Amino acid sequence: MSSIKVLTVLGTGVLGSQIAFQAAFHGFAVTAYDVDEDALAKARDRFTRLAGVYRAQVAGATGGKTEAALANLRLTADLGDAVVDADLVIEAVPELLELKRDVYRKLAELAPAKAIFATNSSTLLPSDLKDFTGRPDRFLALHYANNIWAQNIAEVMGTAETDPAVFAAVVDFARNSGLEPIEIRKEKAGYVLNSLLVPLLNAAAGLLLQGVADPHTIDKTWRIATGAPTGPFQIYDVVGLTTAYNIASSSPDAGSQAFAQYLKEHYIDQGKLGVASGEGFYKY
Amino acid sequence: MSSIKVLTVLGTGVLGSQIAFQAAFHGFAVTAYDVDEDALAKARDRFTRLAGVYRAQVAGATGGKTEAALANLRLTADLGDAVVDADLVIEAVPELLELKRDVYRKLAELAPAKAIFATNSSTLLPSDLKDFTGRPDRFLALHYANNIWAQNIAEVMGTAETDPAVFAAVVDFARNSGLEPIEIRKEKAGYVLNSLLVPLLNAAAGLLLQGVADPHTIDKTWRIATGAPTGPFQIYDVVGLTTAYNIASSSPDAGSQAFAQYLKEHYIDQGKLGVASGEGFYKY
Repeated sequence: MSSIKVLTVLGTGVLGSQIAFQAAFHGFAVTAYDVDEDALAKARDRFTRLAGVYRAQVAGATGGKTEAALANLRLTADLGDAVVDADLVIEAVPELLELKRDVYRKLAELAPAKAIFATNSSTLLPSDLKDFTGRPDRFLALHYANNIWAQNIAEVMGTAETDPAVFAAVVDFARNSGLEPIEIRKEKAGYVLNSLLVPLLNAAAGLLLQGVADPHTIDKTWRIATGAPTGPFQIYDVVGLTTAYNIASSSPDAGSQAFAQYLKEHYIDQGKLGVASGEGFYKY
Repeated sequence: MSSIKVLTVLGTGVLGSQIAFQAAFHGFAVTAYDVDEDALAKARDRFTRLAGVYRAQVAGATGGKTEAALANLRLTADLGDAVVDADLVIEAVPELLELKRDVYRKLAELAPAKAIFATNSSTLLPSDLKDFTGRPDRFLALHYANNIWAQNIAEVMGTAETDPAVFAAVVDFARNSGLEPIEIRKEKAGYVLNSLLVPLLNAAAGLLLQGVADPHTIDKTWRIATGAPTGPFQIYDVVGLTTAYNIASSSPDAGSQAFAQYLKEHYIDQGKLGVASGEGFYKY
């Protein structure tokens, strides 16, 4: 079962393109699928930029290694063609339940019987999707962190129906693609990382909204007292304030609603979206 | 008001002795008070050990600086003598409300009018104590982290009655004693640091108790994804599992109660108390 060699990644957005490039960089033959030629053109740009990021930031990424990674990547807008020989299909399409279910219904028909399916969903449980895969025993979640060349964890989380041998094969694949596999033993919304990070970020938001301290003071406290390189508001800026807004505004909790409103008024409406826009809680 | 020069520290336990030594190391004349000669003998041992820790771990702590710090420290078991000329009295006596109130009642009579009183309480709010100080305008909280030579923050938190000039003077004192002052604008249980840390530690405990992942996996995830030097269970081991048990068992929350029981059965009853005993979630 440690025989995952041919990888297909569905979706070439921020995470999908990183997932595809990371595996290609580690020698896997990777097919990246997206819906049309326009999306594929954007994917080509993302891969070129990622090659530059790896050369600048990843040890041993010179001497033709990123060129080899690019050569390992094949792009297609034909789903049947994309998965024709896949050992593993990683789904990284937008976080819309109906869209994902539709993708799995098609995959179930088009992919070979040997193919394992893995969802990179941050917000859905694999149980929400398993019944649409046609192969619940060969389906699980494989969840990447953003900037995977640096934050190189891959959280592996099955359902009660996932075959343990499939779980083990995906753990091996994660390790073989340069990631530290995080083996999760029970389905849990937020996996391990977000289950830890969200309460910290919520607590920081609460201190700000209650007027206890400002973001710089809160971050400084966290950095000095724990030795962490970044405080919670620096993490918000990296995650992006639009994403933080979307998460907070979709929560029924009154504190989260208030924080969403605060983000909108003080930051998002002024174009301050975090690191990506050059300013959020900090200037970059 | 930036005229705090003479410091008295009440209580020479783990934190009290660190608070006294840190200020003495930065040139303040410090009187350390404890209840009897036995407690003072223990304090002398603590100061000697702290001198060794500073020489080993603090930049610029050689060349007679720790000897000078020890020379700046005076010990007494006479409360009136301890506070006779104090500009600032930092109270670091055990976390028992009635004991603290009793100390403040005595202080109110014995200390000079100029003296500012500051509590290092982790669990009580300054509002719980202010009415016993005889000087609520010259009273606030000044909260230190353990191992203050390394985690050198000092959280400054007043009540609605604290004179802003007193607040500013204590902020100056914290900075002048080699600490980064954390200015808290509103009373908040847990200050900034524990308001952030406790939700993270609770979330980690929840993942363990729910069987989602083991402590090593949870810690690894946190370290890799956030760049922090330690994960939540490593922090539990530093805090000490008896302290973690006391906090969890005094919470009405069912999850906290379950975690307290888990700590007792799997660790405390087996003498595994964290870093201090050589083993907790990890071996040292």
